[in-house]
Amino acid sequence: MIEKLAIIGVGLIGGSVALALKEEGVVKEVVGCGRGEANLIKAQSLGIIDHYTHDVSVAVKGADMVLLAVPLGAMRDTLNAIHGHLAEHAVVTDAGSVKGSVVDDVKGVFGAVPGFFVPGHPIAGTERSGAEAAFAELYRNRRVILTPLEETDKQALQKVERLWQQCGAEVVQMSVEHHDEVLAATSHLPHMLAYTLVDSLARMKENDEIFSFAAGGFRDFTRIASSNPVMWRDICMANRSSLNKMLTRFADELHELAGLLQSGDETGLLEMFEHAKQARDRYVDGVE
Amino acid sequence: MIEKLAIIGVGLIGGSVALALKEEGVVKEVVGCGRGEANLIKAQSLGIIDHYTHDVSVAVKGADMVLLAVPLGAMRDTLNAIHGHLAEHAVVTDAGSVKGSVVDDVKGVFGAVPGFFVPGHPIAGTERSGAEAAFAELYRNRRVILTPLEETDKQALQKVERLWQQCGAEVVQMSVEHHDEVLAATSHLPHMLAYTLVDSLARMKENDEIFSFAAGGFRDFTRIASSNPVMWRDICMANRSSLNKMLTRFADELHELAGLLQSGDETGLLEMFEHAKQARDRYVDGVE
Repeated sequence: MIEKLAIIGVGLIGGSVALALKEEGVVKEVVGCGRGEANLIKAQSLGIIDHYTHDVSVAVKGADMVLLAVPLGAMRDTLNAIHGHLAEHAVVTDAGSVKGSVVDDVKGVFGAVPGFFVPGHPIAGTERSGAEAAFAELYRNRRVILTPLEETDKQALQKVERLWQQCGAEVVQMSVEHHDEVLAATSHLPHMLAYTLVDSLARMKENDEIFSFAAGGFRDFTRIASSNPVMWRDICMANRSSLNKMLTRFADELHELAGLLQSGDETGLLEMFEHAKQARDRYVDGVE
Repeated sequence: MIEKLAIIGVGLIGGSVALALKEEGVVKEVVGCGRGEANLIKAQSLGIIDHYTHDVSVAVKGADMVLLAVPLGAMRDTLNAIHGHLAEHAVVTDAGSVKGSVVDDVKGVFGAVPGFFVPGHPIAGTERSGAEAAFAELYRNRRVILTPLEETDKQALQKVERLWQQCGAEVVQMSVEHHDEVLAATSHLPHMLAYTLVDSLARMKENDEIFSFAAGGFRDFTRIASSNPVMWRDICMANRSSLNKMLTRFADELHELAGLLQSGDETGLLEMFEHAKQARDRYVDGVE
């Protein structure tokens, strides 16, 4: 049982954790913390949080579990604000999409990564944001990646693991570096491609007409370009080095494809498409 | 009323036209034509076609409406097979995803584009294929682009227009060249990106793990990489020049993005993502 859960950042991610844990009956008190008052009032009226404050140091006071669900760009300021105000038994975790930058922020603020800090990342989300978008089922059958360090306290790790399991998620562990590479490949790069495609088409002079003929596949393909631009700027900056590697790899493959097209290599084109289709059907449809 | 409709290629596209027109009660007889017997037997048992033949010249005999719903790579052979066997009052249309190559094929076979030939392209489809995938509602509220030439007979154009309207589609007209540019941007390029991304990830040595952490957005983003590889090889080859232009434009923008990342230009990144999100929300969500 969590006695007092402090959710710093009551949006889709933080709000859905609170709702799931409340539904499971495994949390006694939830305090929300954020900047926007309207969002916090909404969260309270929806039963996501029991009360709220704008002051991070007040929110974490006496909390045995603290979830940092703020944008990556706000992580360092948030860590500064909790430093020195945590309860002795507090466990702190985060939900940032990049783990290297969060660990760096923690080191910057605390000098080293404290045993009570468990870096985490739920692989879930929608293009919607804010407390209103939160729902208890968000993490059900989803994966949550925890990236504990050598310094991480085993009990703290177990508590965070339990928290996510109670939200219905499957918890897996990997290294910080590996997490950031895997996410660059499967999430950050696809978002960059979707943003670039839509931006590229929007710059064309007949873009009104172009978009009006976009077929079904295009809508699915570009849905992620509706994601929060600030969040994605932060993710890009935080995972710059892994993302750049993936972008380079992708650009090389695109160059190869253009070569196949230019030389009219039908066999090469077919092989590439078949390879991709097999991989997609094999790996991805299995989890749909 | 269509007296005899010949569907050459009884797959998702051709089969769905037959089903829709039958449901509307505006066609008396539907003959299906294709190579695979199992597919044609299936189509007959599903009530998509009344009877079938493997011989294109037999299928079009006496037909007042002929729909060529074969892959682009089979268009020329199909046109060769119908040449000399069409009824005097026959109207011929096609459903190819690229119009320039079809018009070239028609010219190659008939010497010039006959008045009775109306190039068309329904902007609809799923990743499934074959007669079994066909359904009467496929074209409902979808757009069909017709690209008549100066030579095209007005009455033939009207008949094809009516056929698609009876399937529930909205018919628009544009030039062959413009069609191929618009489709390169909104359909062919996105498919190339999805294929390239999946192929690129599948080549990574930890690809089993990579795919297992693909989140919701990735599945939507890469769904089109499950499309028929042969069909897409044909589309690529047929629309090579427009597609290459779009690929180059996209690669340039990706290069710009990589530059923003490398120089840590947060403002530039944010502007690009915001621009894309606005365009996506404005143009695409309106039609979802």
